[in-house]
Amino acid sequence: VSEVSISSEILPVAGVRLATASAGVRKAGRTDLCLIELAPGARTAGVFTQNVFCAAPVLIAKEYLTRAAPRAFVINSGNANAGTGEQGLSDARAVCTAAARLLGCEPRAVLPFSTGVIGQRLPAERIVDALPAAVAALDVAGWRAAAKAIMTTDTVPKCISAEFDAGGIRYTVTGIAKGAGMIKPNMATMLAYLATDANVAPSALQGLLRDVAARSFNRITIDGDTSTNDSCMLVATGARADGREMAPGHPGWPALEAAIEAVALGLSRAIVRDGEGATKLVTVRVRGASSDAECLKAAYAVAESPLVKTALFASDPNWGRILAAVGRSGVSGLAMRDIGIAFDEYPIIQCGEPVASYVEDVAAKILAKAEFDINIELGQGPGRAEVVTCDFSYDYVRINAEYRS
Amino acid sequence: VSEVSISSEILPVAGVRLATASAGVRKAGRTDLCLIELAPGARTAGVFTQNVFCAAPVLIAKEYLTRAAPRAFVINSGNANAGTGEQGLSDARAVCTAAARLLGCEPRAVLPFSTGVIGQRLPAERIVDALPAAVAALDVAGWRAAAKAIMTTDTVPKCISAEFDAGGIRYTVTGIAKGAGMIKPNMATMLAYLATDANVAPSALQGLLRDVAARSFNRITIDGDTSTNDSCMLVATGARADGREMAPGHPGWPALEAAIEAVALGLSRAIVRDGEGATKLVTVRVRGASSDAECLKAAYAVAESPLVKTALFASDPNWGRILAAVGRSGVSGLAMRDIGIAFDEYPIIQCGEPVASYVEDVAAKILAKAEFDINIELGQGPGRAEVVTCDFSYDYVRINAEYRS
Repeated sequence: VSEVSISSEILPVAGVRLATASAGVRKAGRTDLCLIELAPGARTAGVFTQNVFCAAPVLIAKEYLTRAAPRAFVINSGNANAGTGEQGLSDARAVCTAAARLLGCEPRAVLPFSTGVIGQRLPAERIVDALPAAVAALDVAGWRAAAKAIMTTDTVPKCISAEFDAGGIRYTVTGIAKGAGMIKPNMATMLAYLATDANVAPSALQGLLRDVAARSFNRITIDGDTSTNDSCMLVATGARADGREMAPGHPGWPALEAAIEAVALGLSRAIVRDGEGATKLVTVRVRGASSDAECLKAAYAVAESPLVKTALFASDPNWGRILAAVGRSGVSGLAMRDIGIAFDEYPIIQCGEPVASYVEDVAAKILAKAEFDINIELGQGPGRAEVVTCDFSYDYVRINAEYRS
Repeated sequence: VSEVSISSEILPVAGVRLATASAGVRKAGRTDLCLIELAPGARTAGVFTQNVFCAAPVLIAKEYLTRAAPRAFVINSGNANAGTGEQGLSDARAVCTAAARLLGCEPRAVLPFSTGVIGQRLPAERIVDALPAAVAALDVAGWRAAAKAIMTTDTVPKCISAEFDAGGIRYTVTGIAKGAGMIKPNMATMLAYLATDANVAPSALQGLLRDVAARSFNRITIDGDTSTNDSCMLVATGARADGREMAPGHPGWPALEAAIEAVALGLSRAIVRDGEGATKLVTVRVRGASSDAECLKAAYAVAESPLVKTALFASDPNWGRILAAVGRSGVSGLAMRDIGIAFDEYPIIQCGEPVASYVEDVAAKILAKAEFDINIELGQGPGRAEVVTCDFSYDYVRINAEYRS
């Protein structure tokens, strides 16, 4: 959609103010608390992890979201408040209640989010103590600092803005996310917050987020491990609205959807690019199974294979590992004679036979790039799917062997 | 079964002779060719990879096995002859034909096996040239050398013998296997050859192998990548038989089955212990889902999680990663309040709550051992399953990033 443009700057969203603070959740002296305040009238949609053992804050955010229009999100890094039993639930509720008192809203209008180590008690008191400073610092320009406060093993903050026009009004979409490890989002990503100043019908907002997440956050994988804390929130403040609610059918809807998808795709690719130990961003594109779902099976088998990912790290065009991963993926009806594999547009296998003119050095040069595609043709049907992944390096092992030490 | 004993030595199996040679398949000066000759009358069962893109030798071995009683196996390491198209099939057939001529049998009585790099043409001529020396060297005492010749990134040869008594006769089972990487066998393991001098009914042999493989080779994982070349062969030479064929119902059958399972379990554990970069052998034992198959889903999710495996490498009792893996495994009906997790017998989580008396140092000491169990209780039903896995170290990345260089 031509009306959408990604902004080179991070743009505030009218109706959203943000602040960060140092609560000393895990380490002293870093910002680890983020408060996002939403103006009255803002509408919020959320998608959450499908992990059965979702964290205490996820359970509470899901419940509160059905009971009241959110007025604030309280997010901490350094501790996931997952696997913490009943204690974890009451700790999360205590944080919401304290924030609500400061903001003058009801406790269930404050949604809690946590990311970090699983299985340790949340230091709720330290978070509560840091809240007044955060409330005092709320600012429409706080997006980038917020993106930094929610990081765990991320090395760069992830923050993207887009703009679009509808009905003569210029709207903004800004989003932040964090990722790095335990990343195979399923209905959401680790933590992502998107906001727009458009006026979106409540009935349409959740479907919009679900569809966008399915095409962005839910198509990335770093290590195949779906987190207990994944949450993705979309806020429509309506602050720049022309009075008429936007929903499918509204002339501005395609631009709104495109702008939100552009921000979500940008954030999800930024998460993969900054995956734990990652040195490359690789798009695995599969077509030709009987359905999109079957193509997705093959794409994930390749995108999550430790053997493929270590070969990508080494820029080694060891395509046999790709073939082996597709072959074990469980896609039905595959036949070797129909298979094609290419790195970017450079063919390796065609109709199941190695390409005679194949030169390994050419393939190795493609794999040495920071971003490239693996294209896989299955030759059976109209299905298509793509998954964005990264390589698997020494640093992945180092980061995850040392994460708690 | 009390009649079965694992031997401290490698025992020859009457009716089986083995030889190795250096064919220079990939590197000069190492034994990379193994010939196994079976006496007339020997019966053979085989299970092969479920990878759709199985290698040329697998396709031919499966076909030949239905047409004639095998008289020999020709196995090379250094090249998998997989992803090699029509050329790969004719290369494998040429090797079989040359061996058959030297051994005085029909070509389809010779089964080919290959392991090594995928996607490069098999140097069939060099193998054919090395066959006469191998035939001349055939010896009943060749098992250990054979186990060495079939290695790729394995660091130790895997060879086990067991004995059992039935009807006053002492029988032998000896087996060899190789593993190391691309190891999540599905109906077989990378390469394994077991032989017994018992006289086993042809109708019972295949079922025996299938059942044993399901409880041993098919319950291990190193990296979740099912190879294109997995093959496991079981030979019953009948050389020590009392004339009556053994089959279910024969008084010696339980001992035969136990002896073969003992060898298969020993080999499969040896494969995991020698997994690429592995420093630990970990048994993931899950019970309490509605079925064994559901338990197996959870066990594989834990056993293949890169986050769990890097924590195991670090001896870090980061049980939240185990909880997260079970939670995303797709097992239905899970509830946090029913979950239990223990390292060996030391409880971490009971009824979904962290155990109050838990001391992290105690857990870390268990994880520092060379072998331990992760016990997971789901509390929903009678299912049980276990999977044997290893940790994930820097060396896994090093080995697989450098494998072809």
